[in-house]
Amino acid sequence: MPEYTLYCFAQSGNSYKVALMLTLAKADWQPRFVDFFNGETRTPAYRAINAMGEAPVLEHGELKLAQSGVILDYLTNQLHQFGPRNEEERREILRWTLWDNHKLTSYFATYRFLKLFAGQGDSPQAQWLHGRLLAALKVLDTHLSDKTYAIGTRITIADLSMIGYMYFADEIALNWADYPHVKAWTERIAALPGWKHPYDLMPGHPLPPKA
Amino acid sequence: MPEYTLYCFAQSGNSYKVALMLTLAKADWQPRFVDFFNGETRTPAYRAINAMGEAPVLEHGELKLAQSGVILDYLTNQLHQFGPRNEEERREILRWTLWDNHKLTSYFATYRFLKLFAGQGDSPQAQWLHGRLLAALKVLDTHLSDKTYAIGTRITIADLSMIGYMYFADEIALNWADYPHVKAWTERIAALPGWKHPYDLMPGHPLPPKA
Repeated sequence: MPEYTLYCFAQSGNSYKVALMLTLAKADWQPRFVDFFNGETRTPAYRAINAMGEAPVLEHGELKLAQSGVILDYLTNQLHQFGPRNEEERREILRWTLWDNHKLTSYFATYRFLKLFAGQGDSPQAQWLHGRLLAALKVLDTHLSDKTYAIGTRITIADLSMIGYMYFADEIALNWADYPHVKAWTERIAALPGWKHPYDLMPGHPLPPKA
Repeated sequence: MPEYTLYCFAQSGNSYKVALMLTLAKADWQPRFVDFFNGETRTPAYRAINAMGEAPVLEHGELKLAQSGVILDYLTNQLHQFGPRNEEERREILRWTLWDNHKLTSYFATYRFLKLFAGQGDSPQAQWLHGRLLAALKVLDTHLSDKTYAIGTRITIADLSMIGYMYFADEIALNWADYPHVKAWTERIAALPGWKHPYDLMPGHPLPPKA
């Protein structure tokens, strides 16, 4: 049995953050499919695994960890990669990870969900989220204008957190021309040995046709 | 000059997280008013202090830190209070801090902003955020049903993060009866020696009348 089991599904950018880290680090892992679109994360059995009712969850021996940011941090110690090298780097990684959870991933994921899966792309709430997302991307684009990666020249879990939904950009018709530095950064990461698109890395894509 | 300077304003629950920590720990600090409602966080001068354009910012000697979660973490080392005592506690604190940034503070703060300051409380986006907020409060209520504080019997920065907007509950007409464990937790924190309401702890309240 592989060392790590990741509760995940293909459409989950939050799961992808961890799946990509495990893959890039050549860790010994397997996916465990979470049937999100049929309500598995709302079941009592799943809530017993994660009270927050979210994917991903990482299983490592007796340990079950939730929240992608917690899992990424945990894996830096396990895999000895993508972590901070000093206190200042640790703070910078935490800063961008928190910002990602608050402003980037949250708006991207929620907007995409409304547009793609709930058929509410033109609703006022979706349009409002879209505006928030574009503002966040502008902040990131400015930040990346003179950097290779989030905290400098080396890829860290701050990048792996913020990259979560970026390869779904075509699904929300994102105009990359407005964010050239973000685009170049996504291409740098996609060029790393072993990189895969979320749909090739995790189970559950494509979705089955609706009954 | 006090040891710590906190860029903040009274209506900012994110600033309050830090202001309350400094106060409860009896740290030597002063507020530095951020004129958010007149656009200060959008000025180039402020963006030079914080590229993310947000409050709070903590100034400590030569160091300027942004993101409440980063500042709270930094202060646990400086003040030797409210921090984790082992690796498991560290992960639990990070877990609830990330969740707070993603699901609790973000929905509370944004809903309150639309309702209170933008006059859009009944808009579809505000109502959507409201639903998300109530779902997050339910998760927290369940979590606190058998605990004194977020990670057990001792207050930590996970609590100080999640408490950020709670004392503004009356402003959004929150029905506390639906969240008795969250309410009891807010009262436990309000009973701590030195506790103050955000409006009594930071400058800028009440807002001046509109011209």
